[in-house]
Amino acid sequence: MLLKNLISYNKAKNIVFNSFDEMMKHKYKIVDILSSYNKISFEDIRTPMNLPMFNKSAMDGYAVMAKDTFGASENNPIILNLVDENPNNAEIGTDMCIKLSTGMPIPKGANAVVMKEYCIEEDGFVEVRKGVHPYENVARIGEDVKKGDLIIKKGEVITPYHIALLSSSGIKNIKVYDLKIGLISTGDELVDLDDFNDIDELKNEYKIVNSNSPMLYSLIKETGLTPTIYKRARDNKEEIKNTILKALDENDVIITTGGTSVGDRDYTVEVIKEIGNILIHGVQIRPGKPFGFAKCVLNDEEKFIFILSGYPVASAVQFELFFRNYFRARKYVYLPLNRNIASTLGRTDVVRIKLINKNNKTYIEPLRITGSGVISSITKADGYVIINENIEGYEKSSILKAYLF
Amino acid sequence: MLLKNLISYNKAKNIVFNSFDEMMKHKYKIVDILSSYNKISFEDIRTPMNLPMFNKSAMDGYAVMAKDTFGASENNPIILNLVDENPNNAEIGTDMCIKLSTGMPIPKGANAVVMKEYCIEEDGFVEVRKGVHPYENVARIGEDVKKGDLIIKKGEVITPYHIALLSSSGIKNIKVYDLKIGLISTGDELVDLDDFNDIDELKNEYKIVNSNSPMLYSLIKETGLTPTIYKRARDNKEEIKNTILKALDENDVIITTGGTSVGDRDYTVEVIKEIGNILIHGVQIRPGKPFGFAKCVLNDEEKFIFILSGYPVASAVQFELFFRNYFRARKYVYLPLNRNIASTLGRTDVVRIKLINKNNKTYIEPLRITGSGVISSITKADGYVIINENIEGYEKSSILKAYLF
Repeated sequence: MLLKNLISYNKAKNIVFNSFDEMMKHKYKIVDILSSYNKISFEDIRTPMNLPMFNKSAMDGYAVMAKDTFGASENNPIILNLVDENPNNAEIGTDMCIKLSTGMPIPKGANAVVMKEYCIEEDGFVEVRKGVHPYENVARIGEDVKKGDLIIKKGEVITPYHIALLSSSGIKNIKVYDLKIGLISTGDELVDLDDFNDIDELKNEYKIVNSNSPMLYSLIKETGLTPTIYKRARDNKEEIKNTILKALDENDVIITTGGTSVGDRDYTVEVIKEIGNILIHGVQIRPGKPFGFAKCVLNDEEKFIFILSGYPVASAVQFELFFRNYFRARKYVYLPLNRNIASTLGRTDVVRIKLINKNNKTYIEPLRITGSGVISSITKADGYVIINENIEGYEKSSILKAYLF
Repeated sequence: MLLKNLISYNKAKNIVFNSFDEMMKHKYKIVDILSSYNKISFEDIRTPMNLPMFNKSAMDGYAVMAKDTFGASENNPIILNLVDENPNNAEIGTDMCIKLSTGMPIPKGANAVVMKEYCIEEDGFVEVRKGVHPYENVARIGEDVKKGDLIIKKGEVITPYHIALLSSSGIKNIKVYDLKIGLISTGDELVDLDDFNDIDELKNEYKIVNSNSPMLYSLIKETGLTPTIYKRARDNKEEIKNTILKALDENDVIITTGGTSVGDRDYTVEVIKEIGNILIHGVQIRPGKPFGFAKCVLNDEEKFIFILSGYPVASAVQFELFFRNYFRARKYVYLPLNRNIASTLGRTDVVRIKLINKNNKTYIEPLRITGSGVISSITKADGYVIINENIEGYEKSSILKAYLF
């Protein structure tokens, strides 16, 4: 594969991410909270109210004026008058109390709750056997979140815990990033999963099942965006062009796999050159060198094309670095290597790793299998490390940043 | 909250997980590969074929007998006869070659591929300017996966990379765990997200929005199983009983939140005692002490009821420890603490943490906010540590297992 003008990983990343910055300014949809799980917030979200909204009881018990109970104990119980009113509207004075369940508002006049375990109720009186200080067993207004607090940042992934917080805040719908992504695989040797009956058919016709489209489909789902798979295009310029134009029309971004090099059959890049502007073709990374990225304008709208490798491991790494990491960067931890890693100056290496636990220590173990076609290697990985282009490798025990799947 | 017979975390976990072991023996559905993302495999999956299925070219170039090219170089090119046949059926002999694109089968007789960059084709001859050794640029049969290799284990979560491997193997459908889970929240003070118009309405009526059902709904989605939310039940024994019976009829498992203690309004446990057998009520953990678990038989089928706390942080932790961890245990890393944590002997503490990176080291930082109602604390966490019941706490710099969200 001969690619001229290879650029560095960082330069390529900047070109792609700046393009996304521009595009994502206005790509959102509104979803209800139950559908927002795993989507990406389009904006900063602040609570419209205090949580709790009112002082409420944190326990089942009796609302009191705390000062009335000072000194109360098993041996020195204090007697209060039980007010038999709905606590929502009631008010109490000195030596009075009102029965409350957890979550009920603290009535006017009261400032603490005695747990019912320390009270004996009889004939309109309550014997209190434990003193409480002001606000004991009271969940106070704004204790969890204050009105106007930032609860979700623009770009943050919505978790189930955010959904609890959004619901509590009475927020029913939010704006999330929305991007329609068309997936196109090319290659005469490919057959789509739906287009064969049994394995012998594949073997006899020397066919390879298209695994890139299903993989990218689920990678995009995982990112919280909206993928569509197009039927695989044969190595035929007209067919590739028609598929790309249709997909561009129906999506914001398209991702092609295969045909990225400069071969006789590699029409993808040729076609894209005709309909758009290739911004990247070839990056100093391994795996994933033949990565391409193009911009084109269709129906007055800017659209992007990611040109990924036909090899699943290479396309997975290209997707990870140039697509997924824009929308949801991986968490990382610094951990020691358990053996040397070699690398090549001038090239950024993405090395798949496992985490190994030995005697209460966690180590990074680089996976030895490195072929870009060997998809089974990536299913065994817990994550990866990135070795910068100015590094020749690392010795065992070096501390590296491990990005975690 | 007075609970008798608190049991240990480990004892409770064993009771729940053994029950799941029994139930999950026969709870599966068959899904197509595209729908299998994030689901849990019901069985060990082995490839029905070698990957690749046949020796194929890893490059665009010319298939040759390697021995014919030994010694070839820029200055000493070797001339081969070009066979103009479909490589799928062709066979070559000495001094012959066939043009191939990446992915095409290696024709009979050939055992290596010279990259086209090192070849010049003219008039039925190819000038080869670089020697290749046997199997150079050939992806060999079974190099990635051998027929019969285990590619996914029973209980493993299906990732996009598994989906690539399943597709490559020609596997169109798989069995995944399937469990229908009904979600019931109880409490007069609760209002469902759909059942109010604006925030003032909540404030004036002292209502709290039901956040447990939406949170558990998305937690279950995240686990790859099938949740259904039921309308919140008021603190009325009949209403709770009817809702539970309907949900039990329509699901395999139900999860209730609220009403777990022994209060005047706490009918949930009372109702469940009438229709089933309570196996756990109260566990020595914090947060989450009032956890309950029950078994009942309906329509000749065993069903389980998880009785969770009404406080969202407590119910989130109970769900994590007793439900999610059965289906998909969290990854963990050993890391040092950046300050002391106190705990109480005889109780298992679940402490939410953040990971902090300082000078190429990652530390565990316990989050200080500990109220079980303070849902905002959990949205800020990167994970948690579990402090066993026989530990009184940890000093700064101790190495702990951090479970990662």
